[in-house]
Amino acid sequence: MISFTCDYNEGAHPAILERLVATNLCQEPGYGADRFSQSAQKLIREAVGCPDAQVFLLTGGTQTNSTVIATMLRDYQGVVAATTGHIAVHEAGAVEYTGHKVLTIPQHRGKMKADELKAYLEGYYADGSHEHMVFPGLVYISFPTEYGTLYSKKELSDIHAVCHEYSLPLFVDGARLGYGLMSPACDITLQDLARLCEVFTIGGTKVGALCGEAVVFPSGKAPEHFFTMIKQHGALLAKGRLTGIQFETLFTDGLYLKIAGDAIDLAMQMKEMFVKKGYELFLDSPTNQQFIILPPEAAKALEGKVAYEVWEHLADGRTVVRFATSWATTPEQVAQLSALLP
Amino acid sequence: MISFTCDYNEGAHPAILERLVATNLCQEPGYGADRFSQSAQKLIREAVGCPDAQVFLLTGGTQTNSTVIATMLRDYQGVVAATTGHIAVHEAGAVEYTGHKVLTIPQHRGKMKADELKAYLEGYYADGSHEHMVFPGLVYISFPTEYGTLYSKKELSDIHAVCHEYSLPLFVDGARLGYGLMSPACDITLQDLARLCEVFTIGGTKVGALCGEAVVFPSGKAPEHFFTMIKQHGALLAKGRLTGIQFETLFTDGLYLKIAGDAIDLAMQMKEMFVKKGYELFLDSPTNQQFIILPPEAAKALEGKVAYEVWEHLADGRTVVRFATSWATTPEQVAQLSALLP
Amino acid sequence: MISFTCDYNEGAHPAILERLVATNLCQEPGYGADRFSQSAQKLIREAVGCPDAQVFLLTGGTQTNSTVIATMLRDYQGVVAATTGHIAVHEAGAVEYTGHKVLTIPQHRGKMKADELKAYLEGYYADGSHEHMVFPGLVYISFPTEYGTLYSKKELSDIHAVCHEYSLPLFVDGARLGYGLMSPACDITLQDLARLCEVFTIGGTKVGALCGEAVVFPSGKAPEHFFTMIKQHGALLAKGRLTGIQFETLFTDGLYLKIAGDAIDLAMQMKEMFVKKGYELFLDSPTNQQFIILPPEAAKALEGKVAYEVWEHLADGRTVVRFATSWATTPEQVAQLSALLP
Amino acid sequence: MISFTCDYNEGAHPAILERLVATNLCQEPGYGADRFSQSAQKLIREAVGCPDAQVFLLTGGTQTNSTVIATMLRDYQGVVAATTGHIAVHEAGAVEYTGHKVLTIPQHRGKMKADELKAYLEGYYADGSHEHMVFPGLVYISFPTEYGTLYSKKELSDIHAVCHEYSLPLFVDGARLGYGLMSPACDITLQDLARLCEVFTIGGTKVGALCGEAVVFPSGKAPEHFFTMIKQHGALLAKGRLTGIQFETLFTDGLYLKIAGDAIDLAMQMKEMFVKKGYELFLDSPTNQQFIILPPEAAKALEGKVAYEVWEHLADGRTVVRFATSWATTPEQVAQLSALLP
Repeated sequence: MISFTCDYNEGAHPAILERLVATNLCQEPGYGADRFSQSAQKLIREAVGCPDAQVFLLTGGTQTNSTVIATMLRDYQGVVAATTGHIAVHEAGAVEYTGHKVLTIPQHRGKMKADELKAYLEGYYADGSHEHMVFPGLVYISFPTEYGTLYSKKELSDIHAVCHEYSLPLFVDGARLGYGLMSPACDITLQDLARLCEVFTIGGTKVGALCGEAVVFPSGKAPEHFFTMIKQHGALLAKGRLTGIQFETLFTDGLYLKIAGDAIDLAMQMKEMFVKKGYELFLDSPTNQQFIILPPEAAKALEGKVAYEVWEHLADGRTVVRFATSWATTPEQVAQLSALLP
Repeated sequence: MISFTCDYNEGAHPAILERLVATNLCQEPGYGADRFSQSAQKLIREAVGCPDAQVFLLTGGTQTNSTVIATMLRDYQGVVAATTGHIAVHEAGAVEYTGHKVLTIPQHRGKMKADELKAYLEGYYADGSHEHMVFPGLVYISFPTEYGTLYSKKELSDIHAVCHEYSLPLFVDGARLGYGLMSPACDITLQDLARLCEVFTIGGTKVGALCGEAVVFPSGKAPEHFFTMIKQHGALLAKGRLTGIQFETLFTDGLYLKIAGDAIDLAMQMKEMFVKKGYELFLDSPTNQQFIILPPEAAKALEGKVAYEVWEHLADGRTVVRFATSWATTPEQVAQLSALLP
Repeated sequence: MISFTCDYNEGAHPAILERLVATNLCQEPGYGADRFSQSAQKLIREAVGCPDAQVFLLTGGTQTNSTVIATMLRDYQGVVAATTGHIAVHEAGAVEYTGHKVLTIPQHRGKMKADELKAYLEGYYADGSHEHMVFPGLVYISFPTEYGTLYSKKELSDIHAVCHEYSLPLFVDGARLGYGLMSPACDITLQDLARLCEVFTIGGTKVGALCGEAVVFPSGKAPEHFFTMIKQHGALLAKGRLTGIQFETLFTDGLYLKIAGDAIDLAMQMKEMFVKKGYELFLDSPTNQQFIILPPEAAKALEGKVAYEVWEHLADGRTVVRFATSWATTPEQVAQLSALLP
Repeated sequence: MISFTCDYNEGAHPAILERLVATNLCQEPGYGADRFSQSAQKLIREAVGCPDAQVFLLTGGTQTNSTVIATMLRDYQGVVAATTGHIAVHEAGAVEYTGHKVLTIPQHRGKMKADELKAYLEGYYADGSHEHMVFPGLVYISFPTEYGTLYSKKELSDIHAVCHEYSLPLFVDGARLGYGLMSPACDITLQDLARLCEVFTIGGTKVGALCGEAVVFPSGKAPEHFFTMIKQHGALLAKGRLTGIQFETLFTDGLYLKIAGDAIDLAMQMKEMFVKKGYELFLDSPTNQQFIILPPEAAKALEGKVAYEVWEHLADGRTVVRFATSWATTPEQVAQLSALLP
């Protein structure tokens, strides 16, 4: 049984495990003061091209989103997101649990549009009773989105410009950042991203790490006492070395982008294979998540042999499903899938 | 330079790393549905002797404490702890961040007393205006305490009886549980503990794991939808296998208690060594944290060679310091310390 | 200058002020233990026809909504409301501030539909990952709605039946309850309402009181220690007599419904007058808020003489505006408006 | 039966009721934009001698404390109070409900000491692990205190100086402010108070109003968007005229201090009477709350005729009780008490 259900089915990239083993008995201080974390932070600062960047290593995605959002907002503010934003739907109300509203605007294949964001903000401030409403205090997008889609440099720049006009910081959730940056459809670099937002994350969990999300404030403007608030949110690892070693490894010799690129290559092969065989794409995703419309006979052929994620049942008996590749996917696995598919 | 500053200076017990490597490419579902987590839960249920126990694997100590406390309390309730309780002082207000007060009662070398707990509860309910005050809703103790001290079975039973009388669940924070259970002064077993409280944790981070705390509800009475609330607290790992593999390893063939026992043996040797050399103990700790009063000449002798935690500066120029052993401490390290000490 | 901007432009019904004056120096205990509050609770229990009802007197609308919602939900739950629900938009995030998400479903002239509610709930529980999402824990509607519209007995019964099927309590926000019950279009009574929900409010602020909202749990199932949580939410008046006297007066000899009825009569006259003069209704409201489409010449004619609330500017130069009557509106004021309108 | 149990047993000063009646039908905008609120704010600015002061009118004491504290603190901060501070004990955890810890230091007859505050702050910042603890972010005292005691100008200045040294704003809870300012033992004026803190409240509920607390930021430095956060806390009255009229009346012709002074005169007479009759004072209170040690025979003599608050039962059979006067207390009532006491 092969699984394409998600991009966190396996453990960690072997180089990470090797490094964990090699450094295991070095004695290091806790809470992120270890030399691995410091090295990882330095490597990330270099990779994003921001010498003043502040980098924090947290453990999980929901944790990171709620910690960043809660600490960047004042009590009277909420975070603006597309209706399909992960924080708006799939994080068990973690943002609201910190006391803040998620303010939603329309989505288009997972993305918000700069002009609709602007219209929302204009409308908000034009409303005579807006002081009775939640102030927008931060804009949240993900790159890639929930649907595997990407913002172009132009789209991202436009959103950032609107944010700037309204003095709103932009937060880019990069839980799958590597898969976005290595997509053939991507026209931005990590350095571009760092210029086009106030805070972003570099997802480790889905791109080769056991766990870990790096939070990057490119201009070094983390919320005051962010360290204490990480602890308050239960997001501070005693053995910071665990995330330190992982990000140090991922950002040594470009490993992070390299393994993300491998996953993208296989995703594109997989897409091409589906198209060649005559399958309909639910949407033409440029990243590691491929959304396919599967007819019943195909589903039957894969039963018990290949696992995938069911997304939606269509009225005509077909099913929208998601096949995800990851750093751990092998060409053999894609070949096996191809062989099984009618 | 050898460090005795704390019990989380190193990585993980080698058996854990081996197992991580061996299972790395097995594909498993996320969020704790993996077979390693299930196996770990089964092994823990057996170890605590409670077939109905519910076991959840979280990542860190503060996270675990705030998640357990917040989910066991109703809005009008707070948690009762000794003034020195970790949650009362050193968790950056993580409990209050969830909306709940930490209600403190006196401590005696880190421990609360059953009769003082009872007096507090009696006083609370006798107060005509108690409905204007925070209701006690949970009692929190740690085993061992912040000072490395232990509750005897009698003391724990008495506290539990008071809790029972007032229908209050008892929560035992076992961040260093192994070191408590393996202390020569300890007269309870893991099974006893499970009978004497409503929820407790088995700390992994300080006893051989990279990260991870197991939350055990011995009678299977976890708060409803605890899984969703773990997510809401940002405490749900996507790759649950990480904590699953660690606790599976620690609870295979008694590894957890074995390595804790090794640390205790060395701590006892260390204490004996200090006493023999004429050093004064700040308090006679039966666990892996030893509190010693260090004269200036001893501090000078260790400078740059042995690290420890400074606890308190005394007026006479001496310093109260803490030396901690862990599963990773070696007899050689203790011998080196001994050789250096005047 | 006459104002029809809202229904809280004046002070209190004179009978309330008289009673405040008459009882001013009676010494009464605080925090709702006074005899006026007890009498008000008794009168309300009688009026709603529920001898077991629990009644609490709070001060303001947002306060009441957030206190009721927060105390009826568990941490993992949110409240379901129509997208236009007051709690979803105009309460400054007060519900989210208590840690809970407002889960929105479509609105139709301010109302939710039973079948859409059911579809939402079915979809939620059918979703394989619903445990990663906020659980619906309460359904909120208002009567009348933000648009002055009303649920029929059939509609309310259907919504209640769906709630019952999913074990969800139904909360009816009656900030303008009197104006709803006295509408010619209303086919329910206060007693019906009490049977068709688990908790509702009887708004005083907009129906003759200086301040005050009565929270009614018809079956006596208030959240445990609701009193303490009222205090925790800052919603407990030291001089409970203030709300006690007001609700005692409003529920003596049917004053509450009587004065609401007067306001409705004038609102209907006003609507008829607008229609007769050829004005277009934005929607045909059966309650005290009338939404009219005002052409520029009419706006000009009223300038400086009659105040109203601007709702929305239409592309054709006309404006959607709201004229509200209240218990304090006089026939003379409506006549003056009529005389001024072209 | 006469009651001295507290200072909120009666309604409002008659001048307030007269004014409510006289202005009842004036149409005014809601949410504090009415002319009464604006007039009250102007009068208070004049009374405190701060032309730039920002003044907000809220409804209740706990509400006001939790709103001010929550909005002045950042997430990583708590509020420092004496162990007996009202917020630390008798507000049902309202401060913690907003996510913030109350950090307690010792009390001396209800007061904190400047040097102990300083020692606490020094100790906090000297602690190497203070970033794992809650940062002090605000200092809270009440004037008068829970025990009716007062800070002298020197004591208040010293506390303010310590706050200044650590860049901490000082918040003075003046729920009974009038009774403090008019005490013969008081050596500060309202203007002094405004210079010696960053925010304070002028309590109306206990000094002649039906409800209402004025929050004063003497230098005009209210938290940004305080209005929206008042709403978020459920503390915004729709009919702001209710508090507006009350504070306008209380601050016209010095009524507030005048009626507080009358209450103080009677309290001093009462104290003298108790002393003359040989009763022991529990503490020598200079304000309207008198704490007396009552022997059983006195308690018996008052039974059913005079009500007071029981504070504490002493081992010798006597009882510490509180007799409170208020703006509504009459000389006749004190004379009756005197006549009844053995």
